[in-house]
Amino acid sequence: MSDTVLILNGPNLNLLGRRQPHIYGHETLADVEARCRETAAELGLSVVFHQSNAEHQLIDWIHEYRVDAAGIVINPGAFTHTSVAILDALNACEVPVIECHISNVHKREAFRHHSYVSLAATAVMAGFGTHGYVLALRHVAQLHRTKGDVK
Amino acid sequence: MSDTVLILNGPNLNLLGRRQPHIYGHETLADVEARCRETAAELGLSVVFHQSNAEHQLIDWIHEYRVDAAGIVINPGAFTHTSVAILDALNACEVPVIECHISNVHKREAFRHHSYVSLAATAVMAGFGTHGYVLALRHVAQLHRTKGDVK
Amino acid sequence: MSDTVLILNGPNLNLLGRRQPHIYGHETLADVEARCRETAAELGLSVVFHQSNAEHQLIDWIHEYRVDAAGIVINPGAFTHTSVAILDALNACEVPVIECHISNVHKREAFRHHSYVSLAATAVMAGFGTHGYVLALRHVAQLHRTKGDVK
Amino acid sequence: MSDTVLILNGPNLNLLGRRQPHIYGHETLADVEARCRETAAELGLSVVFHQSNAEHQLIDWIHEYRVDAAGIVINPGAFTHTSVAILDALNACEVPVIECHISNVHKREAFRHHSYVSLAATAVMAGFGTHGYVLALRHVAQLHRTKGDVK
Amino acid sequence: MSDTVLILNGPNLNLLGRRQPHIYGHETLADVEARCRETAAELGLSVVFHQSNAEHQLIDWIHEYRVDAAGIVINPGAFTHTSVAILDALNACEVPVIECHISNVHKREAFRHHSYVSLAATAVMAGFGTHGYVLALRHVAQLHRTKGDVK
Amino acid sequence: MSDTVLILNGPNLNLLGRRQPHIYGHETLADVEARCRETAAELGLSVVFHQSNAEHQLIDWIHEYRVDAAGIVINPGAFTHTSVAILDALNACEVPVIECHISNVHKREAFRHHSYVSLAATAVMAGFGTHGYVLALRHVAQLHRTKGDVK
Amino acid sequence: MSDTVLILNGPNLNLLGRRQPHIYGHETLADVEARCRETAAELGLSVVFHQSNAEHQLIDWIHEYRVDAAGIVINPGAFTHTSVAILDALNACEVPVIECHISNVHKREAFRHHSYVSLAATAVMAGFGTHGYVLALRHVAQLHRTKGDVK
Amino acid sequence: MSDTVLILNGPNLNLLGRRQPHIYGHETLADVEARCRETAAELGLSVVFHQSNAEHQLIDWIHEYRVDAAGIVINPGAFTHTSVAILDALNACEVPVIECHISNVHKREAFRHHSYVSLAATAVMAGFGTHGYVLALRHVAQLHRTKGDVK
Amino acid sequence: MSDTVLILNGPNLNLLGRRQPHIYGHETLADVEARCRETAAELGLSVVFHQSNAEHQLIDWIHEYRVDAAGIVINPGAFTHTSVAILDALNACEVPVIECHISNVHKREAFRHHSYVSLAATAVMAGFGTHGYVLALRHVAQLHRTKGDVK
Amino acid sequence: MSDTVLILNGPNLNLLGRRQPHIYGHETLADVEARCRETAAELGLSVVFHQSNAEHQLIDWIHEYRVDAAGIVINPGAFTHTSVAILDALNACEVPVIECHISNVHKREAFRHHSYVSLAATAVMAGFGTHGYVLALRHVAQLHRTKGDVK
Amino acid sequence: MSDTVLILNGPNLNLLGRRQPHIYGHETLADVEARCRETAAELGLSVVFHQSNAEHQLIDWIHEYRVDAAGIVINPGAFTHTSVAILDALNACEVPVIECHISNVHKREAFRHHSYVSLAATAVMAGFGTHGYVLALRHVAQLHRTKGDVK
Amino acid sequence: MSDTVLILNGPNLNLLGRRQPHIYGHETLADVEARCRETAAELGLSVVFHQSNAEHQLIDWIHEYRVDAAGIVINPGAFTHTSVAILDALNACEVPVIECHISNVHKREAFRHHSYVSLAATAVMAGFGTHGYVLALRHVAQLHRTKGDVK
Repeated sequence: MSDTVLILNGPNLNLLGRRQPHIYGHETLADVEARCRETAAELGLSVVFHQSNAEHQLIDWIHEYRVDAAGIVINPGAFTHTSVAILDALNACEVPVIECHISNVHKREAFRHHSYVSLAATAVMAGFGTHGYVLALRHVAQLHRTKGDVK
Repeated sequence: MSDTVLILNGPNLNLLGRRQPHIYGHETLADVEARCRETAAELGLSVVFHQSNAEHQLIDWIHEYRVDAAGIVINPGAFTHTSVAILDALNACEVPVIECHISNVHKREAFRHHSYVSLAATAVMAGFGTHGYVLALRHVAQLHRTKGDVK
Repeated sequence: MSDTVLILNGPNLNLLGRRQPHIYGHETLADVEARCRETAAELGLSVVFHQSNAEHQLIDWIHEYRVDAAGIVINPGAFTHTSVAILDALNACEVPVIECHISNVHKREAFRHHSYVSLAATAVMAGFGTHGYVLALRHVAQLHRTKGDVK
Repeated sequence: MSDTVLILNGPNLNLLGRRQPHIYGHETLADVEARCRETAAELGLSVVFHQSNAEHQLIDWIHEYRVDAAGIVINPGAFTHTSVAILDALNACEVPVIECHISNVHKREAFRHHSYVSLAATAVMAGFGTHGYVLALRHVAQLHRTKGDVK
Repeated sequence: MSDTVLILNGPNLNLLGRRQPHIYGHETLADVEARCRETAAELGLSVVFHQSNAEHQLIDWIHEYRVDAAGIVINPGAFTHTSVAILDALNACEVPVIECHISNVHKREAFRHHSYVSLAATAVMAGFGTHGYVLALRHVAQLHRTKGDVK
Repeated sequence: MSDTVLILNGPNLNLLGRRQPHIYGHETLADVEARCRETAAELGLSVVFHQSNAEHQLIDWIHEYRVDAAGIVINPGAFTHTSVAILDALNACEVPVIECHISNVHKREAFRHHSYVSLAATAVMAGFGTHGYVLALRHVAQLHRTKGDVK
Repeated sequence: MSDTVLILNGPNLNLLGRRQPHIYGHETLADVEARCRETAAELGLSVVFHQSNAEHQLIDWIHEYRVDAAGIVINPGAFTHTSVAILDALNACEVPVIECHISNVHKREAFRHHSYVSLAATAVMAGFGTHGYVLALRHVAQLHRTKGDVK
Repeated sequence: MSDTVLILNGPNLNLLGRRQPHIYGHETLADVEARCRETAAELGLSVVFHQSNAEHQLIDWIHEYRVDAAGIVINPGAFTHTSVAILDALNACEVPVIECHISNVHKREAFRHHSYVSLAATAVMAGFGTHGYVLALRHVAQLHRTKGDVK
Repeated sequence: MSDTVLILNGPNLNLLGRRQPHIYGHETLADVEARCRETAAELGLSVVFHQSNAEHQLIDWIHEYRVDAAGIVINPGAFTHTSVAILDALNACEVPVIECHISNVHKREAFRHHSYVSLAATAVMAGFGTHGYVLALRHVAQLHRTKGDVK
Repeated sequence: MSDTVLILNGPNLNLLGRRQPHIYGHETLADVEARCRETAAELGLSVVFHQSNAEHQLIDWIHEYRVDAAGIVINPGAFTHTSVAILDALNACEVPVIECHISNVHKREAFRHHSYVSLAATAVMAGFGTHGYVLALRHVAQLHRTKGDVK
Repeated sequence: MSDTVLILNGPNLNLLGRRQPHIYGHETLADVEARCRETAAELGLSVVFHQSNAEHQLIDWIHEYRVDAAGIVINPGAFTHTSVAILDALNACEVPVIECHISNVHKREAFRHHSYVSLAATAVMAGFGTHGYVLALRHVAQLHRTKGDVK
Repeated sequence: MSDTVLILNGPNLNLLGRRQPHIYGHETLADVEARCRETAAELGLSVVFHQSNAEHQLIDWIHEYRVDAAGIVINPGAFTHTSVAILDALNACEVPVIECHISNVHKREAFRHHSYVSLAATAVMAGFGTHGYVLALRHVAQLHRTKGDVK
């Protein structure tokens, strides 16, 4: 089993730290990537870290790692609420999938309360800020160690 | 600011490890408490750990720690979906609140997809098994260190 | 397998025979208990008969008998429509559960047409008046004899 | 007042015991009829027992006994959820009507949770297997003895 | 007819004056009780004043005074929106029931717009601040004088 | 700040005391006006009392007093449920607005359970009969005295 | 163009005058038929008058007269609300169709407020008692005279 | 009892015969009035015939004749779907009310399928073109003769 | 395994080619039957071809062939949207079921978008005109050859 | 074809510039009228500019210009969401109709998201502030020049 | 008219035969393409066969063939339920469009029951496995031969 | 502040003038671009004009100009109704955004009545044909001149 964790970021996350800081904070996505690499190193994992505004690009990356990875951490951004295609790609995954939202989406507009991705995810987290990525990595490591896939 | 984390468990969680293990796993609530105490010790926090089948008991405990704690970790069980009273108690909290579900509730019956508690929580997690309590404690510790309340 | 049948009565049923007799009739809960004991005796069963206005009390009693009983007969009263916590307690039962309503709830207000309890019950009955308790006991006896759990 | 109980069975119940035994069990409708006749004899009642896949046939039988019977026991099958015409026929009845479902319909597809028939029935039962017919007969007998029509 | 008015306060109202003062104001529940006693004295009534976070406790108090009181004034707090059990207890009351909310619930979250309690109340008021308790007492007094139960 | 209270009555209230007395009682609108004038005098306020079946007339009166009055008491009758135009007029008010219904609208047809007016009102009352006008005046007086606008 | 008017009556209308007279009055269907024949004679029309509890029988009669008749008057009874098959049969008609209900269905249960038949009918009437049949015949006669098909 | 029939026409009906003739035909409202007067004369009734685009004007006319008339025929036009105020005015009527629509509203936009007026009307008709007014008058005459108010 | 394919046609399909040709085309049901027999002969299958306006007749035919046939092709007409009884009959089938609609029902009225039959069908097709029957037969033949039941 | 543009303003717009300036800005309706007259003069059009709080007055003005105008610009205010009567008046117009809202209604309360008027309007605009009137006039002028009615 | 049939496959269909074989079977997309080419050759048609995970790529291909093709066969995968953009592209097509789903989507999650594509498709099929592509091609050939576009 | 206006066109708008001219007219997108450049030149603005069928391409362009532009005019085509990702990109904009639809979407299918884009837009327009782009540019110019951002 691979030691790689695929970390995916959906649309508009390239603006992290620059748009709506009252919702998303001041860290940039590069900061998040650095924190993830540091944590992964501690945990004995390696990280592939991607962002795209294109749904098909995210799907291609999921296909690439759907069988051979320690896990997938995905912040699907707006696609959370609209993409059945990403749901289907994740349904084809054989590795744990952690859905991770920076803000607590349940306190925001009603259309952000429903997630297609949650239907395929092993676990879901929201509102942990960028620290959520670190916690998600820790959970992938924990599952990897015990080889206990709770998906 | 207090170093205590209040960890609350709602109705039927006293049966943990004994009922529906395909959903909730084999660990008992005592096992979870032990893990939490161990993690808290590492993190320099102390833990108050409670379970009750009574909504009013949970409310009383929340009132007790709503101002003077490092944070509250709550697995509200079935009250997640029905208790406006617990929501109101949490709305009166001045400390971070982490809502933690063992199973991924979004894959279960439709009435489990809505959470009143999420409307007051700082952060929400589901599907991490009992490991979720550990991650929630880590997040409280992180917030405590930075004194950055993201609620 | 135990010969005991747990008979539970939810909120306001302590007023039976004294409130809204056009809906609930004139028999008191003590009368019902007497009839149940008499029927159980005929059927070779024993009866534990409880009423409470407190949800947590009902949950505790369910936990106590969830494995070791001939069956549970429950008239959840208003909790029928609102208590996911009782549903979860019943989902943890390994014995037959009969849900029993004195009035035909389907002829009453719309919010009384939905029952969380029915999702966990072996069988459901409504509109049989207090005679329903007797019929429910007969069904528990029948299941007990055939050891055929139809839950 | 007549001693006859009309027992009606709706569409597809002629297949009882042969289709989907995990839902409906292994007894045939002839077995059910035999059990009903036996119980009725014990109770001093006589039974008219019918099955039809045709809604109009069921309506005609209801009309025939709507005034002059000890009661009607009806398992409307699929018509439960769709037939306002049977509801109207039952609304014209002056005798007790017991609605009886073999399986617990509340655990099945959502469209099986609503019953037009319940709006006219004296009492409703579901999930008692074929034993439900026996209990329904007992209730008709009870009402007949006390001449207390709780409809 | 008794001269006692039962004044009930639901969950979290023990925090009155200390939580969310922009919604609930700065008076404590003890202040409210004092004002109520003063007003009642003027009106020739006596007051029994209770608060509880427990639904069953509120039900027990309603049962105690359901027949023998000048009236009941109830601020059900969060139970307004979720408790069919309290509705049922109030439906068994033979005295006037005034439902009283401090804030104008219709301007708050959608789930606070529906009240089960209103289905049993004689009259309903919201948004009068703590002065609402005084007005409710005046109305009970008015009904008591005219013995005109408008329920 | 003016001492005048504008009391507005919507469509069909000119029939008060003559139509559906089981809902609205036997007092006429002239009786109500008299009671209001009497109460206002006691409280040191003056009253402008109007009724109209025309929405635009009510809007014009609201505009006239929206800034310069002690408060507005409005029984919008049927317009409660349908008039966004009156809501908008009240949204432009700088004085307290008390919405007052004679009957408990929550016990009547479903379309009477929603009020546009409540979205702009300071406080809302229903089911106090014509005594409600008196209580509403008392509340305006109270707010006037404390100059504490709780809108 | 034929001078025949087909008058159809749906399920349970054979009980007319004998069931629920507070809704349907005391006239029997034979009385209605007599009145129709008398009116038709005055108007120079002939009448074919049928009743059936069977949907397929009503469809067959509609097919028979769908092209060659002065018009169809149909009281579909309960099929109004449930039969797309009758709607489709009426959609295939080339003659005027008058839908006629004895009671004002809009004052009854919510499920009686929707009519599939109205989607194909030329005109719809409800609440005219059995006089409605006479008025419907007059309208068919009027359309027949002017050869103006308003369908 | 008066021999007068009040015939009311709501908004935009002054344009009858000039707007959307594919829906409303070519007759003007003056033509309709003439036909109504002619029919009334035959039937021994007199007619008061009004049209207004103002809801309050229609309410005033209803109030004027609510007790002392043979009946009211009302084509409420667009107010059918929006006016609770007219519903309330009609609820205060003691004479039969016939709701009359020229077109079959059930074949038009969904918002035209619901009528507040039908909740207070004795009888309802739609799709009879302007002939509907004549039939409505005949029905008022019939009710007047038999003094049998079916409202 | 039998070589017979049961082809069923629901209500109003006897009018095929004569009603609404813009929806259903100009071929009659006899034409369709001829085409089906020709295709079946090519494919080495035999055909039983029926039409009925009666739901119970369709159910009886399904029961007859539910075990012993190569497959069932059913165009349920209007029953598609309303018949739970036909759904239940098909649920009892052990042979492939192809649901076939001549028109594309998804472009028509909203109530035609839901099919109960699809819940039991192996495959569903709509909008292929009468050619759909031929394609359905080809699919039955394909399944028959491979003995691969994809139901 | 007339050169006149009818500009209509609905309820509460007489308060423009004085109420809720964060939504509606600081210009008064007189300012808007002046701007409109200036723009119209540039465009070779004349303007009739009206405001009313009365629905019937707006309808009368629409009727007056429904055939003989270059176009109608209407800001229906609150009637946007509630007036089928204005919709029907506009449906009878033969000239272009521009619906114009000062604020972006889609960002406000949910009940402001639906417009009856849009169903009859040629074009709709919202959020352009008072400049929207100018743009609407320009569009009427453009349509007038090309005599291309896009309604 | 071109002899080319465009066959399009949406997101995740590149995984065909490798993911969830209990739903989609064991054939790969290359197998499907081979079968399609073989069938097309028999039918005298040529095939352009594409798959993409990108919505815009599918739209571009549709644009390319929207006028000049024998037909389009499209399995839109997850875009079926979410893509109005593909619907709009298909609405611009002048050639027949066959929507083809491998599984019977009506037996799967509720969000898979609605198809935007069906609103533009000539015909729709689901549950025929990969054989559906062959049947769809046959239908295109049939339409091509008769030049009868049933869209 | 930049003088550039970004004008974006969503999926299928490359077909403008060639598809469904009864909805979208006969002008091509190149015609629209020319008109926009001409108008911008008059107004002292420059134009960047793009079209794409790809959501991610539109998002990238929005990101590019979200801070440094005079404004954005966007016709999102089908993405209006489905793209939360574009909404989020626009929410990150600091310049005015004008949403512009060629047709009056409110007269079309129900799913076209909701716009995610409107939740972020400064202003919204629909039904102005291609002239809408010109008016939108005029509004951007107006806002640019006054530096008054009404977003």
